Amino acid sequence: MIKTDILIIGAGPTGLFTVFEAGLLKLKCHLIDALPQPGGQCSELYPKKPIYDIPGFPEVLAGDLVTNLMEQIKSFEPGFTLAERADTLDKLEDGTFVVTTNKGTKHNAPVVVIAGGLGSFEPRKPQIDNILNFEDKGVAYMIKDPEVYRDKKVLIAGGGDSALDWAIFLADVASEVSLVHRRNEFRGALDSVEKAAELAKSGKIKLFTEAQVTKLYGDDNLEAVVVKYNDEEKGESYVEVDNFIPLFGLSPKLGPIGNWGLEIEKNAIKVDNSYDYQTNIPGVYAIGDVNTYKGKLKLILSGFHEAAVMCQSAYQIINPGKRYVMKYTTVGGVEGFDGSKKEAKKEVIQSIS
Amino acid sequence: MIKTDILIIGAGPTGLFTVFEAGLLKLKCHLIDALPQPGGQCSELYPKKPIYDIPGFPEVLAGDLVTNLMEQIKSFEPGFTLAERADTLDKLEDGTFVVTTNKGTKHNAPVVVIAGGLGSFEPRKPQIDNILNFEDKGVAYMIKDPEVYRDKKVLIAGGGDSALDWAIFLADVASEVSLVHRRNEFRGALDSVEKAAELAKSGKIKLFTEAQVTKLYGDDNLEAVVVKYNDEEKGESYVEVDNFIPLFGLSPKLGPIGNWGLEIEKNAIKVDNSYDYQTNIPGVYAIGDVNTYKGKLKLILSGFHEAAVMCQSAYQIINPGKRYVMKYTTVGGVEGFDGSKKEAKKEVIQSIS
Ligand SMILES: Cc1cc2nc3c(=O)[nH]c(=O)nc-3n(C[C@H](O)[C@H](O)[C@H](O)COP(=O)(O)OP(=O)(O)OC[C@H]3O[C@@H](n4cnc5c(N)ncnc54)[C@H](O)[C@@H]3O)c2cc1C
Ligand SMILES: Cc1cc2nc3c(=O)[nH]c(=O)nc-3n(C[C@H](O)[C@H](O)[C@H](O)COP(=O)(O)OP(=O)(O)OC[C@H]3O[C@@H](n4cnc5c(N)ncnc54)[C@H](O)[C@@H]3O)c2cc1C
Repeated sequence: MIKTDILIIGAGPTGLFTVFEAGLLKLKCHLIDALPQPGGQCSELYPKKPIYDIPGFPEVLAGDLVTNLMEQIKSFEPGFTLAERADTLDKLEDGTFVVTTNKGTKHNAPVVVIAGGLGSFEPRKPQIDNILNFEDKGVAYMIKDPEVYRDKKVLIAGGGDSALDWAIFLADVASEVSLVHRRNEFRGALDSVEKAAELAKSGKIKLFTEAQVTKLYGDDNLEAVVVKYNDEEKGESYVEVDNFIPLFGLSPKLGPIGNWGLEIEKNAIKVDNSYDYQTNIPGVYAIGDVNTYKGKLKLILSGFHEAAVMCQSAYQIINPGKRYVMKYTTVGGVEGFDGSKKEAKKEVIQSIS
Repeated sequence: MIKTDILIIGAGPTGLFTVFEAGLLKLKCHLIDALPQPGGQCSELYPKKPIYDIPGFPEVLAGDLVTNLMEQIKSFEPGFTLAERADTLDKLEDGTFVVTTNKGTKHNAPVVVIAGGLGSFEPRKPQIDNILNFEDKGVAYMIKDPEVYRDKKVLIAGGGDSALDWAIFLADVASEVSLVHRRNEFRGALDSVEKAAELAKSGKIKLFTEAQVTKLYGDDNLEAVVVKYNDEEKGESYVEVDNFIPLFGLSPKLGPIGNWGLEIEKNAIKVDNSYDYQTNIPGVYAIGDVNTYKGKLKLILSGFHEAAVMCQSAYQIINPGKRYVMKYTTVGGVEGFDGSKKEAKKEVIQSIS
């Protein structure tokens, strides 16, 4: 059982920044996310696109914002349970909570913060009869660790940025990379499309367009797939592969959190925004895109403020009766759990004559 | 009369970012500040110190944060009334407001936002009999435009960062710079203290320590001061000067805003944080350090969120009945009032074979 002070569901920008605000209060955090990487929508949906309304950044790429947040929280040593979905919430007799994931990982904490955004990112799966049999046996819908594919024969399906970017990346890792897409045209950032075209020309990516995977073969693990062209005359190809990775996009679903007894409105969790963003279950907070209240703005900057306010309230639950005196970071510095200390240069008091 | 959509009192980080959020809604802003420069506490009290809790910045100097915010709002062309204090608020029959400064400048807008922080920064003045007679006639308590002192004989009093930094800066501008301090030791950033010591040694700054200005002379404009040493035996010096600038620090005072009929609690303005940060006077909002509500955190990131929420509500006052459809900046880009447009690079849809 993983134990922590504040258990955060969702490692989007809101969840990540919560680690920082909690850390200033000497509270440790652990994050759970269905995605294999932190950053939520910023990492999954638009990592290379600029955001213009993060205060103090006239422009910042969504992916860079996430990198900065990871750097900012590093010294508070957050724990991560990635590529697992938080499925159940139970309250123990001692008042603490246990959250269990779809893989059975258990987490225990006195405070749970739902920073689940628009929901847990779930892959769109292709309609192939026996695909479920091969999940984790050659079939994957997202890439957690690209090293798994070293010297393997990999076939990626999809026509967007993820399919292009992973095909490009794995061209240097896998022994063989095929890319299958239903249409002839791909949709993505210009440089991704150009780079993929280059690799296709040089044969480092084997291209099947206007085609799709229709059958999977293998004894236990996946061994081959059938790629069928839209054009009947072109027929089908039997392709030997170790891995089939359909990248048809991940879409967020509130999912199991909807059954935790929380007050839900417009697919979001109602919270007390007049004070601390607590839900109707005491000790469970909801911040960022996942919550709703009058005047709510689903913006990144909202989650940041909600995180700061929410941590102050959580401090009272975790340290009942203890008074916390807030100090500006500029004045008090930042003491990491790793022993590091950042602080402003001291002023000097000295004669100048 | 200066006319605008949203009149902002206070050009600290909160007031500045309001210009951006308003600009996204196509609303124009004008800011009033008692200080000669924008940035509020960040610029006035700790410009060279690092802040660690601005989301996305593992570390940023307060002065750089202000520079970034100014850059971020530039294309929305805010107006500024600087070095003037907003003294009165009047409501006209047409429902709009008029705010008048201590210098008589009048501003008219349908919405007023008080982003006044801990209050209007007011100088601590030295106790010298006739000093009021020489205000703006050689005596100033803050430096608006250093060019005013070109080739002048300037005497600065004070022992902190401002006194040191302006003495250093003016050493290259004025014909003569003197620095008077009650004690022997100065208090400031190490590099400022060292640089001042260097200039004192080379004679570019004339130093009077353990001394203070006790008398001012001049017919209409200031012509000379008397510097008296603490040590009676050392007596006094008569120093001919064009300018006397006592830099004893500026301290914030809620001041006249306290008499505008707003609900005040703990020296701050009560607002409706369950919705839009409006005060008890409809059309008048209070955001940032200047407001108070249950759970309020006087942090820079709070003001940013409050500004975004408040602007949505102000939009309804300014455009009654009109529906605004929020677009992410990443998706809709940012259209400046100067004709500029920032936007994400478009995706391409093309074949790669
Ligand atoms: C194309 C696009 C452009 C945008 N542009 C802007 C912009 O310019 N400015 C702006 O402010 N905002 C913008 N946004 C919105 C912004 O991305 C969101 O406001 C922000 O990501 C919300 O952060 P969050 O941390 O609350 O949630 P998210 O980023 O959604 O992260 C939530 C995370 O929680 C995880 N999760 C949820 N439930 C579970 C569960 N049960 N188990 C495990 N994990 C779970 C999800 O997998 C996800 O990773 C944009 C969004 C999109 C899609
Ligand atoms: C030493 C120090 C360190 C700090 N460190 C941190 C930190 O690490 N993190 C953090 O989040 N915060 C920190 N803060 C607090 C932070 O600076 C404030 O939260 C922030 O400046 C508030 O911004 P604001 O725009 O609301 O108000 P302010 O910055 O106070 O600006 C308000 C402006 O309004 C003007 N004004 C007020 N009334 C009038 C009037 N009637 N007419 C004209 N002008 C008026 C004032 O002159 C002032 O310039 C620190 C503060 C100090 C002093």
